[in-house]
Amino acid sequence: MEARVLIDCSDEKGLVYNVSKLFFELGLNIDKNSEFVDKESNKFFMRSEVSGEFDIENLKSSLLDIAPPNASIKVIPKAIKDIVLMATKESHCLGDILLKFEAGELDANIKAVIANHNDLQSLVERFNIPFIHISTNDKSREAHELEVVEALSKIEFDYIVLAKYMRILSSDFVDRYEWKIINIHHSFLPAFIGANPYKQAHSRGVKIIGATAHFVTNNLDEGPIISQDVISIDHNYNWRDMQSAGKDVEKVVLSKALSLVLSDRVFIYQNKTVIF
Amino acid sequence: MEARVLIDCSDEKGLVYNVSKLFFELGLNIDKNSEFVDKESNKFFMRSEVSGEFDIENLKSSLLDIAPPNASIKVIPKAIKDIVLMATKESHCLGDILLKFEAGELDANIKAVIANHNDLQSLVERFNIPFIHISTNDKSREAHELEVVEALSKIEFDYIVLAKYMRILSSDFVDRYEWKIINIHHSFLPAFIGANPYKQAHSRGVKIIGATAHFVTNNLDEGPIISQDVISIDHNYNWRDMQSAGKDVEKVVLSKALSLVLSDRVFIYQNKTVIF
Amino acid sequence: MEARVLIDCSDEKGLVYNVSKLFFELGLNIDKNSEFVDKESNKFFMRSEVSGEFDIENLKSSLLDIAPPNASIKVIPKAIKDIVLMATKESHCLGDILLKFEAGELDANIKAVIANHNDLQSLVERFNIPFIHISTNDKSREAHELEVVEALSKIEFDYIVLAKYMRILSSDFVDRYEWKIINIHHSFLPAFIGANPYKQAHSRGVKIIGATAHFVTNNLDEGPIISQDVISIDHNYNWRDMQSAGKDVEKVVLSKALSLVLSDRVFIYQNKTVIF
Amino acid sequence: MEARVLIDCSDEKGLVYNVSKLFFELGLNIDKNSEFVDKESNKFFMRSEVSGEFDIENLKSSLLDIAPPNASIKVIPKAIKDIVLMATKESHCLGDILLKFEAGELDANIKAVIANHNDLQSLVERFNIPFIHISTNDKSREAHELEVVEALSKIEFDYIVLAKYMRILSSDFVDRYEWKIINIHHSFLPAFIGANPYKQAHSRGVKIIGATAHFVTNNLDEGPIISQDVISIDHNYNWRDMQSAGKDVEKVVLSKALSLVLSDRVFIYQNKTVIF
Repeated sequence: MEARVLIDCSDEKGLVYNVSKLFFELGLNIDKNSEFVDKESNKFFMRSEVSGEFDIENLKSSLLDIAPPNASIKVIPKAIKDIVLMATKESHCLGDILLKFEAGELDANIKAVIANHNDLQSLVERFNIPFIHISTNDKSREAHELEVVEALSKIEFDYIVLAKYMRILSSDFVDRYEWKIINIHHSFLPAFIGANPYKQAHSRGVKIIGATAHFVTNNLDEGPIISQDVISIDHNYNWRDMQSAGKDVEKVVLSKALSLVLSDRVFIYQNKTVIF
Repeated sequence: MEARVLIDCSDEKGLVYNVSKLFFELGLNIDKNSEFVDKESNKFFMRSEVSGEFDIENLKSSLLDIAPPNASIKVIPKAIKDIVLMATKESHCLGDILLKFEAGELDANIKAVIANHNDLQSLVERFNIPFIHISTNDKSREAHELEVVEALSKIEFDYIVLAKYMRILSSDFVDRYEWKIINIHHSFLPAFIGANPYKQAHSRGVKIIGATAHFVTNNLDEGPIISQDVISIDHNYNWRDMQSAGKDVEKVVLSKALSLVLSDRVFIYQNKTVIF
Repeated sequence: MEARVLIDCSDEKGLVYNVSKLFFELGLNIDKNSEFVDKESNKFFMRSEVSGEFDIENLKSSLLDIAPPNASIKVIPKAIKDIVLMATKESHCLGDILLKFEAGELDANIKAVIANHNDLQSLVERFNIPFIHISTNDKSREAHELEVVEALSKIEFDYIVLAKYMRILSSDFVDRYEWKIINIHHSFLPAFIGANPYKQAHSRGVKIIGATAHFVTNNLDEGPIISQDVISIDHNYNWRDMQSAGKDVEKVVLSKALSLVLSDRVFIYQNKTVIF
Repeated sequence: MEARVLIDCSDEKGLVYNVSKLFFELGLNIDKNSEFVDKESNKFFMRSEVSGEFDIENLKSSLLDIAPPNASIKVIPKAIKDIVLMATKESHCLGDILLKFEAGELDANIKAVIANHNDLQSLVERFNIPFIHISTNDKSREAHELEVVEALSKIEFDYIVLAKYMRILSSDFVDRYEWKIINIHHSFLPAFIGANPYKQAHSRGVKIIGATAHFVTNNLDEGPIISQDVISIDHNYNWRDMQSAGKDVEKVVLSKALSLVLSDRVFIYQNKTVIF
């Protein structure tokens, strides 16, 4: 039995001692251990990879017994997670994830791809992944999202990955799947929030462009950042060149963020992330 | 005789031919030649390093004869330029430039350092550079800037380099030295304009921070960008750690931008730069 | 009619003038123009994108008339090139190119994929690309390569792209396709030439790993470098983690190099590249 | 009282528990805690920043009592360390450290600068640091090093920093100051070991150059790597341009490595480093 233990509570003396004591008394191996204390907010974060003979629920309740009252404790079995991808027309992020999945390099099952266009249907089905086309034609945002929610309700999943899904999600939708939606934004946030960041970047004359993977919240492009990367550009790049060059950064950043999330290495607090 | 020829005009057929013909007929060597056409705005940029026997003014007027009516032509002798540095209390950017100057690695004479505090006086004077302390105590912004202008009026210089000068300059001041003022901003612009970008970056939870060197205009931190660079950070960095780590990026970015400007490699247009 | 003109000769006065004069007299538009002089070896390189009414062969012979005797002149019509991919078992580089091809983002037709294993057959055929499996079982290197050459002889192609083809090619093979073979090596060359560079990197304890795309010559991993990139790692990475993290760099570097080669932006000289 | 506890031993169950128990029983605060297990070699590394009322020697002996027999235990009071710089003629790395020292940004006292030329004397003395010129004229390597050892014997120091000291040190010298000498090499090691790496890099036609800070051992440029960084270059850079551009990387990499070493964040094992 292997599990990841995530503890998030206010800092106090003896936390590491008490947790490691419990692991020791239960005979668990600690395969990896990371801690972080945010002094400013007096918050303690700990993530341990443990193995041995134990029951998930028992371990969790034992940890709750020794942790401060406000503690958030997760004991997550090391297992392949389930994800749903959402996309529109662009294939670079989606295809990258499909390739990694097929190569056995993604710690997740792709349960389905939901798209508001059908351009990517052929690609997705070639990888034997169910493709669900939910058109937006003649539908209000609410009506369209209801159909998406309906489709999602039939699927068991841990995370929704927006692989260049080019529609803004309503508050209702975001709230329903709190901290379960990961997005890739095609700029180095917080620069160039909103529509067509490459046009904005070109107009501003920046010398570096980037991409940002983040959890989706109700503030557009303002959720907790998981991963970012950049590339250098110069005056030879018009905005379409930037868009083209940016695709390689987008897919790598999304893929990196997804890998971190799937291995339960990401804590969220104060609209930021702690990543072990 | 060596010079840099900078041509900036609307694009039309035969421009390279006409200019290279003139260079050829005058017997000039072309040591380096760069062109760029911005198709969107139909603008042509050309920079040539030429050597041979020629008169600067004659060459310029010959170029004006063959160029389109709206052309901007500069013929700049290859010579050490003069700069004035402005600083406040932090030494990392200023000191970096002083060291490069002393090592003979800066294509400029430093005519003076003007500062609104005297913390850096000892450092500057050790390098035999005049230090001019113009305190802001009990002075309006206008009164203080008048003293700075007065001091500058006694110095011949090509560029003013704000090496962490922490005061906002008035429109009057900026207009007086149009396209002559270079600033280093301690963020990856346009993210985190304004005061304490590292605090802003920490609060936003970014995973990468940066620095931006740009020409100063009347819009705070919105002038044409010359150079940018970034470094990766993580949740272990509080804002003071970011500030500390950022210093190495700031000085390198400013130094890079200064080197580009001093070698006449920077064109400005549409609030952007073309850099050869 | 659009073409790319590539000139490579010893440097002499008037080259740009003579070439631009010819373009002007033929009424050609210069859409892009780049020059470079290597002073050390007195070599001149020029690449122009021209458009207008002209005949490729006429333009080439006119250029030969005005260029120095030793000049190498290419006039290449702007057209989709043909490539053959070679692979073994890993899909990350191959799949990335297939995805770009399908998305219309590759300036090339993929004529076939040749592999020494059949693991990738299903993937390749899903993209409607012919897959040619040439097993190495019970064959000498010579015998195996003869089969590859035989297969290649039936295909018209401009470049062979080794997308993680894990066999060393013989001199005969390399000579036959001189400057037509592009390889991706999974290290930051010249560090870690040869087998399993990630194991070598792990053993050396480097803090940065990389990938290198280069033309293949008869010296293993020592051909002219086209493109390189790196990522940071730390002690947490064992060599398999490096290998896994390195895949994203490898595919992006190969894809970048391929794009440069397909747009005729790469000159080769002295085992190096000049890239416009 | 604040100290850094560094533990390095073979991995076994209960290590974190036993150490954190000891800290708890002694009433120490754990301000920061990091662990790493190298599974391949079954090695355990732990670094804790602790504060409270305690005696350094007592804490160390208590830790030895609970640790495996082969454990290496260090308890290092959080204090300003002492360093000696060694240099030759180039000022960029040396000057950078002097500036950081004066700005209060270096956790070290600079006890002296020893140089085999006197070019840097004026610079060093301006910062009120003793400058010791030990010429190599008419001296064997042994004789010269004896003078350096003699000079060092009069100074108390924790580390020797080779800030572009351009002489190779003998085995005797290196052995005498084992794991106390930090060097900056002007290439991305292990590429371009030895003399003039920029010339080597230019000749190889690489697209990225770098710098490496490492502990000095008896194998030239092959000691454990502490820090590395790179910058992109292209065909426009001759080797002197690379050298010039490389200086900014060299000084930043050395400065980063020095900061890590001074804060006791670096473990050495198997010619590699573990850095917390």
